[in-house]
Amino acid sequence: MTEAGGEADPPFSHRLRVYWEDTDAGGVVFYANYLKFFERARTEWLRALGVGQQRLRDDTGVIFIVTDTALRYLAPARLDDELDITVRPAEAGRASLTLQQQAWRHNGGAAATLLCEGTIRIGCVAAGSFRPVRFPTQISRALSR
Amino acid sequence: MTEAGGEADPPFSHRLRVYWEDTDAGGVVFYANYLKFFERARTEWLRALGVGQQRLRDDTGVIFIVTDTALRYLAPARLDDELDITVRPAEAGRASLTLQQQAWRHNGGAAATLLCEGTIRIGCVAAGSFRPVRFPTQISRALSR
Amino acid sequence: MTEAGGEADPPFSHRLRVYWEDTDAGGVVFYANYLKFFERARTEWLRALGVGQQRLRDDTGVIFIVTDTALRYLAPARLDDELDITVRPAEAGRASLTLQQQAWRHNGGAAATLLCEGTIRIGCVAAGSFRPVRFPTQISRALSR
Amino acid sequence: MTEAGGEADPPFSHRLRVYWEDTDAGGVVFYANYLKFFERARTEWLRALGVGQQRLRDDTGVIFIVTDTALRYLAPARLDDELDITVRPAEAGRASLTLQQQAWRHNGGAAATLLCEGTIRIGCVAAGSFRPVRFPTQISRALSR
Repeated sequence: MTEAGGEADPPFSHRLRVYWEDTDAGGVVFYANYLKFFERARTEWLRALGVGQQRLRDDTGVIFIVTDTALRYLAPARLDDELDITVRPAEAGRASLTLQQQAWRHNGGAAATLLCEGTIRIGCVAAGSFRPVRFPTQISRALSR
Repeated sequence: MTEAGGEADPPFSHRLRVYWEDTDAGGVVFYANYLKFFERARTEWLRALGVGQQRLRDDTGVIFIVTDTALRYLAPARLDDELDITVRPAEAGRASLTLQQQAWRHNGGAAATLLCEGTIRIGCVAAGSFRPVRFPTQISRALSR
Repeated sequence: MTEAGGEADPPFSHRLRVYWEDTDAGGVVFYANYLKFFERARTEWLRALGVGQQRLRDDTGVIFIVTDTALRYLAPARLDDELDITVRPAEAGRASLTLQQQAWRHNGGAAATLLCEGTIRIGCVAAGSFRPVRFPTQISRALSR
Repeated sequence: MTEAGGEADPPFSHRLRVYWEDTDAGGVVFYANYLKFFERARTEWLRALGVGQQRLRDDTGVIFIVTDTALRYLAPARLDDELDITVRPAEAGRASLTLQQQAWRHNGGAAATLLCEGTIRIGCVAAGSFRPVRFPTQISRALSR
């Protein structure tokens, strides 16, 4: 459940289902929705680190924003598929954090299929003004654990 | 361009295109998205009445919220279809407004096809607290024109 | 976990989280997204009855479509809220099914808050042609259990 | 209206509005939605080249898929903002096409603000099988005009 360590540790993983809302007329998951899936996993990863984003905002006025995304689409997912979305922190600065994420199709007992992978960079800003701020200490502490 | 009058007047109408983002694996527009289409048309109808919602919020702290929706789906729309979304005010209270809306598929020169119709009730609330407030006078004045 | 019986039985319930993707600039869940939440719960309810929609389509060429929705919005949900979405079948015809659904905010130990409720009518159609068909026997059997 | 030429030509541009559906609880456009905005502009760019995607699919069984996206977010957009989304083809292969796209906030008479920019790579596949195919000649011809 921790991602602090080396490549050897298994990354944090969040399981979700594909519903009608996620698909498009190609019969598969609409590519933009992987950004949503990746964010759900980041949110749960933060929650596992003890960070609730609504509480963080209420307490400190700070919100996370996404500043860069780079995704590669390898295979499609369909309705009812179960996906595992992983989160691996790659680089942490004072006011930014880069994460590597992947979406895998869970195939029952068989080997999973990598559907999409990419890099997401997030920053820390004051809600309202969007002025960059340093990561709250609770976050830095959680990440360096 | 005005909806103030009787049933005889043609209703306000907003044209839009169906894009990939709007479709689902059934090959047609995902039904929940008609609520988005209806709202785009209401927003443009308000703008035609001189009401910009972001400016209204900045000036008065008031936002509109949707309190009731009832939609009936009659025929599907597909990628690249051009739709005309209509807005007809049906009933106005002090802090609420009921609108009748329809989505029509534009078929070039031929008669349009009714795809979806319904009733949307909106209310006026203070942003943040969501406490009901009376419609700002600029709105009531615009509606009673 | 069964919805076959009378009002006395607790309805089927599906828990989900509110993520950034679900919210709008009002700071709360965008009202159209309750249709998505309701559908996720219906999908899980069908799955609990042994019906997978992708497999149903692959096996029989049949898909479900939504033909009527009527929703009432009572209170807003915010980022990180945990919601319980309920499903209660109300009326079943040969080619249609009406369900009553509610969204409740889970408040830890305290009483839950009803946020949204409504009625959804679904029909059964042949994928592609959208011609109405009778509910596959596996569905009727599951519903009459 | 053509982007075939050198850097000197102004790129194809598509104007759109920001509606409630596009925003999130940060009070600004949800970052994933720029992928939707970029796609709307690509769709209109293709249409201006004489290519309708639904007709292409009906006629040839071919659909476009997105295989890579890389976006950088520079400034936020808010409700009611008018955006200009540009499309500039950067590199064309036999079965893939790379486009550079930007989102600008239209500021009335004043200089526009660059909000988001990135690179989108699309491929051509057979609908259903998702097997890569060469771009239909009508596309190659349109692009080399």
